[in-house]
Amino acid sequence: MKKVGIPKGTRDYSHAAMARRKYIFDTIEDIFRVFGYQPIETPAMESLDTLLGKYGEEGDKLLFKILNSGNFLGGIGEEDLIEADPAGLSMQISEKGLRYDLTVPFARFVVQHRNEITFPFKRYQIQPVWRADRPQKGRYREFYQCDVDIIGSRSLLNELELIEIIDRVFVKFGIRVRIKINNRKILAGITDILGERSRLTEITTALDKLDKIGIEGVNRELAERGIPESSVERLQPIINLSGSIHEKLEQLSKILSGSEAGVRGVKEMSSLFSYMSSLKLKSEIELDLTLARGLNYYTGAIIEVLAEDIRIGSVCGGGRYDDLTGVFGMPDVSGVGVSFGADRIYDVLDQLDLYPEEVRTGTQLLFVNFGESEEKYILSILPKFRDAGISSEIYPDHAKLKKQMTYANQKGIAFVALVGENEISKEILTLKDMESGDQKQLLAEEAIDFILARHNT
Amino acid sequence: MKKVGIPKGTRDYSHAAMARRKYIFDTIEDIFRVFGYQPIETPAMESLDTLLGKYGEEGDKLLFKILNSGNFLGGIGEEDLIEADPAGLSMQISEKGLRYDLTVPFARFVVQHRNEITFPFKRYQIQPVWRADRPQKGRYREFYQCDVDIIGSRSLLNELELIEIIDRVFVKFGIRVRIKINNRKILAGITDILGERSRLTEITTALDKLDKIGIEGVNRELAERGIPESSVERLQPIINLSGSIHEKLEQLSKILSGSEAGVRGVKEMSSLFSYMSSLKLKSEIELDLTLARGLNYYTGAIIEVLAEDIRIGSVCGGGRYDDLTGVFGMPDVSGVGVSFGADRIYDVLDQLDLYPEEVRTGTQLLFVNFGESEEKYILSILPKFRDAGISSEIYPDHAKLKKQMTYANQKGIAFVALVGENEISKEILTLKDMESGDQKQLLAEEAIDFILARHNT
Repeated sequence: MKKVGIPKGTRDYSHAAMARRKYIFDTIEDIFRVFGYQPIETPAMESLDTLLGKYGEEGDKLLFKILNSGNFLGGIGEEDLIEADPAGLSMQISEKGLRYDLTVPFARFVVQHRNEITFPFKRYQIQPVWRADRPQKGRYREFYQCDVDIIGSRSLLNELELIEIIDRVFVKFGIRVRIKINNRKILAGITDILGERSRLTEITTALDKLDKIGIEGVNRELAERGIPESSVERLQPIINLSGSIHEKLEQLSKILSGSEAGVRGVKEMSSLFSYMSSLKLKSEIELDLTLARGLNYYTGAIIEVLAEDIRIGSVCGGGRYDDLTGVFGMPDVSGVGVSFGADRIYDVLDQLDLYPEEVRTGTQLLFVNFGESEEKYILSILPKFRDAGISSEIYPDHAKLKKQMTYANQKGIAFVALVGENEISKEILTLKDMESGDQKQLLAEEAIDFILARHNT
Repeated sequence: MKKVGIPKGTRDYSHAAMARRKYIFDTIEDIFRVFGYQPIETPAMESLDTLLGKYGEEGDKLLFKILNSGNFLGGIGEEDLIEADPAGLSMQISEKGLRYDLTVPFARFVVQHRNEITFPFKRYQIQPVWRADRPQKGRYREFYQCDVDIIGSRSLLNELELIEIIDRVFVKFGIRVRIKINNRKILAGITDILGERSRLTEITTALDKLDKIGIEGVNRELAERGIPESSVERLQPIINLSGSIHEKLEQLSKILSGSEAGVRGVKEMSSLFSYMSSLKLKSEIELDLTLARGLNYYTGAIIEVLAEDIRIGSVCGGGRYDDLTGVFGMPDVSGVGVSFGADRIYDVLDQLDLYPEEVRTGTQLLFVNFGESEEKYILSILPKFRDAGISSEIYPDHAKLKKQMTYANQKGIAFVALVGENEISKEILTLKDMESGDQKQLLAEEAIDFILARHNT
């Protein structure tokens, strides 16, 4: 048999996986909706002009490019063809690429439709993205993102709202999470007072290991990374911050008093944490000064969410950006957003066995097909079951009873209806509960009520 | 400002369009579900091995090919590069393509997962497909298909079921449709008795114009297409079929008695129409011998659905195929399926103004934000509204009342809550109905009941 398969890093979703994914998307979407966010969708393909240069050099390489259709070599001379390096030639033979994330298409959407949009614009978007990454466990070339953003308002209420959304989503899923929060302005403040503005990444990477390697270890690592001793010295009060979040922020405010950005960052965090304390959030909230996140466009709050009971990387993350749309010619539009990792959430729910019972969807009732005259009778009552919302089917062939029962078993169908001569003459059906094996003779209407009652308990 | 845009033939969906699309997909999906069909999804990208050669030469050209990542030129010699024609070179520098329809991926899915699937396999699939067609009004390069198929059963009950589904879908939408049915075996029978087996397309194309150009016109066209006079002569009884569907089938059965395929085709159609007559279908059903449909893999029933009240091409179509999976090495698996054209249905609903009222979703309640102390109070009562499922938001900034009211108006928000000092002291809120302008002072719980009651009437 010819080998069939799908491109590496991609997946087929069976109906069982689809039911679980639908549960995840519906849960998240319902919460987005009650907070007043509205869905949009953008095309899978964007112009390479839109995508290139937005994700760093590494990101550009991970874009899936689409070969121009028709004679894509037209207008390229022989010499150009031979001398071209792949990157250069790819730009001549392709002008579109697959969406790499939902943020850049969102920015493009906002700029393109700015005259139709009411600002502040609260949108969510749940769509697949594609990255030519090396596939490995938990990393796919096609995966879904669930992004929620509000753009056109600088108010911290927006950050607060996103944290409420995160809290609600994971409470609903039954996943205990830790929401880590930091602020890019605080990080800027720290590098300001160290005089090491350009070394932000090295400093936060070292700080990030505090739990693992201790203060001594962090200091050693900072030195190894070439941070001068005097700067490492000045970093000590920050490493040694202690007490409640408000006490930490107070200490920080003194330490960073020499940096304008730092002062503003501390103030923002103080307001945000003060807001949060008035809400009854169920998740652990943490001020984490080592949190930096890779993307360069964050300018204020940064948020990252970790599952408490499983090590799997972050399940949600995001932050405030002040100039997302500037690159498309629409400057000074501040926004804040987070992205939920549907695939990670899927794995967490799976591994912690947190899917609710009712996520098993599928056919509820199978009518066994004994032959032509039974068929006609069944066809006349089947619509009643479907009108009542009961997922019902008739076995299409006159197969042996055993084969039909095996079909019902393999599909996990809860009830089987047996309709023979006897049932037809009495205008009833024999309903068999496939789990208990119990059989009852019922009118169609009674059977409908019985199945619906069972389904709702 | 830099020009921003999306690739031609693709679309952004605003939240208004999303709400309408959701209505379409949910309606179709609910009906698929009550008939016992289960959803699957497949990746956007398939191997070109899977896609090529399945859609004819023209289809191959319309595939969007994805450039291999990394050094896609590696291993291609200079001469090959220069001498390559675009089609040949494209096969060397790309090995994946975007899904062109949902049928071929479905066949690939069935073969790949045949050991996990319970047959007969009833699946539906709602996903976008991509075609490098020349974009024009109503024709896009990215569009959604909604496919429903049952594979692994030759029973005509399956054809019947799909016709029931089609009927239910369009009744639910309020779109009056004509369901045209034919059978490839009847068409084969016709060419058999004419001795013109290879001229099927020419004959059906000519027959198709019967309504427009009359019998004389059809005969002239057949002659022009090189069909011998004797064959045109033998075709006359078929062109002249008259009476009810059953009468027509009876005449046809005599005319085609010399063709084995033809006889079987007539028998299938007789059974199917006899089944249908016992159901209370609301749509017009028509036996249309001119219906051929382009795709070569149909082997039995062919179905095409037209909207009665608008000229827009078919809104649904499909048929029986006996060897869809054979090309992937799994022969003799018969199936039947239809595909709903979501974009066409969208346009029909739009033009006939058939969207139900409630398809306007979005925020139901906006809390006006007067300042910090009001904000705190609002934040404490907001969760109650959201817990009740009411889509609610607080304006994030302390903007002027007028600006906030404009925001509510532009977003079509039904209610605005005004909370000032007076309301806070009494623990109430002033609820303004944006349509009538009426204002009421209510407790939060009363406001919730009021909004929910309004929403449900």
